[in-house]
Amino acid sequence: MEFSSKLLEQAVYEMSQLPGIGKRTALRLVLHLLRQSESQTEHLTQALTKLRTDIKFCKNCHNISDVELCEICSNPNRDASVVCVVEDVRDVMAIENTSQYRGQYHVLGGKISPLDGIGPQDLTIHSLVEKVKAGEIEEIIFALSSTMEGDTTNFYIYRQLEEYRIKTSTIARGIAVGDELEYADEVTLGRSILNRIPFENSLKN
Amino acid sequence: MEFSSKLLEQAVYEMSQLPGIGKRTALRLVLHLLRQSESQTEHLTQALTKLRTDIKFCKNCHNISDVELCEICSNPNRDASVVCVVEDVRDVMAIENTSQYRGQYHVLGGKISPLDGIGPQDLTIHSLVEKVKAGEIEEIIFALSSTMEGDTTNFYIYRQLEEYRIKTSTIARGIAVGDELEYADEVTLGRSILNRIPFENSLKN
Repeated sequence: MEFSSKLLEQAVYEMSQLPGIGKRTALRLVLHLLRQSESQTEHLTQALTKLRTDIKFCKNCHNISDVELCEICSNPNRDASVVCVVEDVRDVMAIENTSQYRGQYHVLGGKISPLDGIGPQDLTIHSLVEKVKAGEIEEIIFALSSTMEGDTTNFYIYRQLEEYRIKTSTIARGIAVGDELEYADEVTLGRSILNRIPFENSLKN
Repeated sequence: MEFSSKLLEQAVYEMSQLPGIGKRTALRLVLHLLRQSESQTEHLTQALTKLRTDIKFCKNCHNISDVELCEICSNPNRDASVVCVVEDVRDVMAIENTSQYRGQYHVLGGKISPLDGIGPQDLTIHSLVEKVKAGEIEEIIFALSSTMEGDTTNFYIYRQLEEYRIKTSTIARGIAVGDELEYADEVTLGRSILNRIPFENSLKN
């Protein structure tokens, strides 16, 4: 692509660095911004900058939050003895949408994936083990996507927690294998929380 | 969608204002930025801000440019007596890619579209008529997308220029009716420039 302007080229290049955005789409988005008022670009860039610099992660569950302790962790009506282990904030949002779950969460920030260079030390597994060690937790629910990386991560954490003899479960496999958690419909996802099975059982499948 | 953070919600909202970007996609893009280094967000926001504030439009053809007179208009090897009328910078890029055209351009900045509230006065038609009036132009090539709005715009400009008795043509209708110019393949688009037909003839179809 030959651009008539270096500024345009640079903006398109940066936009096309986002996942799933090719050069043509990036150009379309950038030209859209040029046609809109200057304030729209300002609002977008300010919101992104503010998010990137001011964002906090809850010190208990590591979910994205504006405060030190997120709304769920600081809610006395949530059962702190049950912890649902998820990959990221999208999974928290998906489970919250079902209104089926009254426990807390633990956001890993990813899955173990050697191919992408993501090992256990890159996730918040250590902090989860510490919480279990402190005796605060009675049950861990694994709610990672049922992909190879998700299963690996489940199993790794399960082995770390084995000695503490707490209850471990996974959400029911009502969700199709290989599907991403965030796209599951609310009924299936809600039922899979209610019908969770002991982790040992899930190993037999 | 319930967000755990107002900053996240705001960023997702602003991102989803872009065309073709829904809430879910916006969330995916924003979370991607959060996972990358802070400098990537900085580069993106700076490029967009710089583009929006510093962008110039060529004073002759109204194309996006970094300088007062764009590269094409200031190139002495381009034939200034032939002017190709296009909608926006993407169409200029598409035609330039064919290497079939050695004239200049006139970028309208849109098409006449009463439904979207875009009238002739919102486009750069007046400046085109002035150029023709000054006797600088021998031929006008209409290269708008062959949609109803494109045809309306062609016809409006044609009527404005009728009294000056210059040659007018449209690119050959090798491009399927209703298709957008920017997605045409280079061979078809190049040929349609070479095989342009008198505008009068195109009215008979």
